[in-house]
Amino acid sequence: YKTLVRVQDLTPEKADQLIWLRARVHTSRAKGKQCFLVLRQQQFNVQALVAVGDRASKQMVKFAANITKESIVDVEALVRKVEQKIESCSQQDVELHIERIFVISQAEPRLPLQLEDAVRADGEGEEEGRATVNQDTRLDNRVIDLRTTTSQAIFRLQSGVCQLFRDTLTKKGFVEIQTPKIISAASEGGANVFTVSYFKTSAYLAQSPQLYKQMCICADFDKVFCVGPVFRAEDSNTHRHLTEFVGLDIEMAFNYHYHEVIDSITDTMVQIFKGLRDNFQTEIQTVNKQFPSEPFKFLEPTLRLEFTEAVAMLREAGVEMGDEDDLSTPNEKLLGRLVKEKYDTDFYVLDKYPLAVRPFYTMPDPSNPKYSNSYDMFMRGEEILSGAQRIHDAQLLTERALHHQIDLEKIKAYIDSFRYGAPPHGGGGIGLERVCMLYLGLHNVRQTSMFPRDPKRLTP
Amino acid sequence: YKTLVRVQDLTPEKADQLIWLRARVHTSRAKGKQCFLVLRQQQFNVQALVAVGDRASKQMVKFAANITKESIVDVEALVRKVEQKIESCSQQDVELHIERIFVISQAEPRLPLQLEDAVRADGEGEEEGRATVNQDTRLDNRVIDLRTTTSQAIFRLQSGVCQLFRDTLTKKGFVEIQTPKIISAASEGGANVFTVSYFKTSAYLAQSPQLYKQMCICADFDKVFCVGPVFRAEDSNTHRHLTEFVGLDIEMAFNYHYHEVIDSITDTMVQIFKGLRDNFQTEIQTVNKQFPSEPFKFLEPTLRLEFTEAVAMLREAGVEMGDEDDLSTPNEKLLGRLVKEKYDTDFYVLDKYPLAVRPFYTMPDPSNPKYSNSYDMFMRGEEILSGAQRIHDAQLLTERALHHQIDLEKIKAYIDSFRYGAPPHGGGGIGLERVCMLYLGLHNVRQTSMFPRDPKRLTP
Repeated sequence: YKTLVRVQDLTPEKADQLIWLRARVHTSRAKGKQCFLVLRQQQFNVQALVAVGDRASKQMVKFAANITKESIVDVEALVRKVEQKIESCSQQDVELHIERIFVISQAEPRLPLQLEDAVRADGEGEEEGRATVNQDTRLDNRVIDLRTTTSQAIFRLQSGVCQLFRDTLTKKGFVEIQTPKIISAASEGGANVFTVSYFKTSAYLAQSPQLYKQMCICADFDKVFCVGPVFRAEDSNTHRHLTEFVGLDIEMAFNYHYHEVIDSITDTMVQIFKGLRDNFQTEIQTVNKQFPSEPFKFLEPTLRLEFTEAVAMLREAGVEMGDEDDLSTPNEKLLGRLVKEKYDTDFYVLDKYPLAVRPFYTMPDPSNPKYSNSYDMFMRGEEILSGAQRIHDAQLLTERALHHQIDLEKIKAYIDSFRYGAPPHGGGGIGLERVCMLYLGLHNVRQTSMFPRDPKRLTP
Repeated sequence: YKTLVRVQDLTPEKADQLIWLRARVHTSRAKGKQCFLVLRQQQFNVQALVAVGDRASKQMVKFAANITKESIVDVEALVRKVEQKIESCSQQDVELHIERIFVISQAEPRLPLQLEDAVRADGEGEEEGRATVNQDTRLDNRVIDLRTTTSQAIFRLQSGVCQLFRDTLTKKGFVEIQTPKIISAASEGGANVFTVSYFKTSAYLAQSPQLYKQMCICADFDKVFCVGPVFRAEDSNTHRHLTEFVGLDIEMAFNYHYHEVIDSITDTMVQIFKGLRDNFQTEIQTVNKQFPSEPFKFLEPTLRLEFTEAVAMLREAGVEMGDEDDLSTPNEKLLGRLVKEKYDTDFYVLDKYPLAVRPFYTMPDPSNPKYSNSYDMFMRGEEILSGAQRIHDAQLLTERALHHQIDLEKIKAYIDSFRYGAPPHGGGGIGLERVCMLYLGLHNVRQTSMFPRDPKRLTP
């Protein structure tokens, strides 16, 4: 077999070598006795030339000129250094002089969207009447949309977030667990849950791994994490809601104070931010070309504010709200701007939420029963994590479930988990797509979900 | 706050130090003016003593003796070197002389199962009339069953398998992807699929990430993997079937031959086997104590047999089967024994299955249309992976789907993915629970699923 060279390895050191390459035809332009091609592999591309002469016949130039865009070809070519840098390609110092070309897989001539349109920044080329591609067209033809440099960068960075999350926690002694997605009772109360037919009965799709990761704590795993799908049957058609997303979940026993949990989570987030900053600059800059945004800022240690402080800041900015009201989405965003102005950070923790707005298993604040040992974390003013100390006493848990009018029979296995000794513990759940969206300063979570699901979209 | 010491760190170097420790009461035995406790943290335990004297009052000994098993306690204690090794504990060289003891979380006095019964090997202690715990009792009370040294070891090893899988593939240049689990059309044909109510319509749970990982190849991700739940609505009540399990999935473009894919997968499996052998010996030996088995054997390079060779071996052993019949489960097991005898390996690949027994998207063997470029992989005679070269041409894929009487309208987005240039590619899906079960020589896949789901079990 022939050795195939990668486009990214086509540098001046390879000058005058005859090489084989497999790549897509990114663009093709015939011009008299020549055909100029741009050959692409993922985010890398190189200029190539078929010219009538010693190396190619007239027929071959014609054949090359007729190859449809996005087809996959094998070429044998001589690598040539160029005098003037080729600004439009990632490989700027060389071009290929093609001697042989074979079509491996032919694309249909009419593409449902053009890659150059799909990577155009908002407003760019508007005067020339250049098209941009709307989101539904992108998502309907996701296989092509994902080929753009922007999409390639987004999803390589997303893969990096998962890896950094796991590696950081593994180093901290966390164990990865796998929790069931088909469950017999809705984990967060009855609303917003998808029903599944399960043989002769019915079941639900887990709205979070909450109950299971807590059971693992009761089962002595001490510190656990999991990465997996989370399902929400919420009819929300917004820029930040999906009906299925990827949860990065953490749960851990702590010794004396639930702030040990907050510290573990914020440190994990900081390690992710640093890992992205240090190892994914190419990806970040690629996305920024199409979607400009300010670099993501964070502090060490992470800023932690209390809910009452946030309410005071919002009131000072003219917002009217009660002490125990939850934050509305616009108020969260406003608070994000106020925090950014005052503390110069895009990431912070809001601690001590009112008990009334949190789930039944949330530990009340022992010093003030109106509040709770719970927290959200925000990136660029939008929530990416919700977490808390959990109640680890079966009796108190029963009382709180009754207070929330939850059918005890349905959560019996869960409550029973706490009857045989359970350590104090807490955790949180992070939305992967939101983290990627907000880190990159994007404006729609569908951009960071490969095949997004929302109330109106189930395909592809 | 007091610094808490870990049980595993209680060694003779700590002798005569006064330490704080949080642990479970594993066993408790009062004897005159003394109370002997065994304190446990995960797989580690240590002997502790409360004795009437300078350090403890009579009341305190009584209090300690009344603490229920599995309660979590904080103790302040003096570490003492012992003359004679304490064989029954993991920390054999020291014991603790307790000065103070606090109950952090009290277990109910009646446990639904006893940990010492749950780790007893089959047949052990039978003469003394000691109980073992049946599987349903274990699973009904999974939170306690998971506390045993055996369970702790199994799930730490499982976490290791996932990590080794991802690390090996990441090093090979694979990208992690996240694929949707709620889908609009059954990925592997209509049978065995769970239906979900999805707002005003209905949807399905993905039987595999098959179609999506292939779409990622069409979208230029080149080499991808994913780890996630897989759902099968199969009414199979066997030792190796679950309705929800964790799939370790691989898909990759190849250059010239689908054996490049087989080589990537087998090398990944070998790296997993080596990583387990080198880094999880304690876990393997812990499981072996309760469930003895032969060490797992594998070859380098991995043995690859063709389907026709397997049929010949089986026929020689007296099995009657047609050339294009699939292997029955008993024949797979028999074949595993024959292969072990002949080649001394517990892991091998069976290549070139009959086309008729494989899914519609399987690439036929170009040299013999009765066979296909497809393969299964086996551990200790049971299938752990099914894979193949996939058809990457929309026209051939359409023909094969029609041949399998699949409704083309339902897989339109999938087939369309191949219309705009697609490289030759292949892959496979591995069942995580089966890999762990078979590596450890266990006999039921429920032992390697934390919260197993089968047609009869949806809880806890």
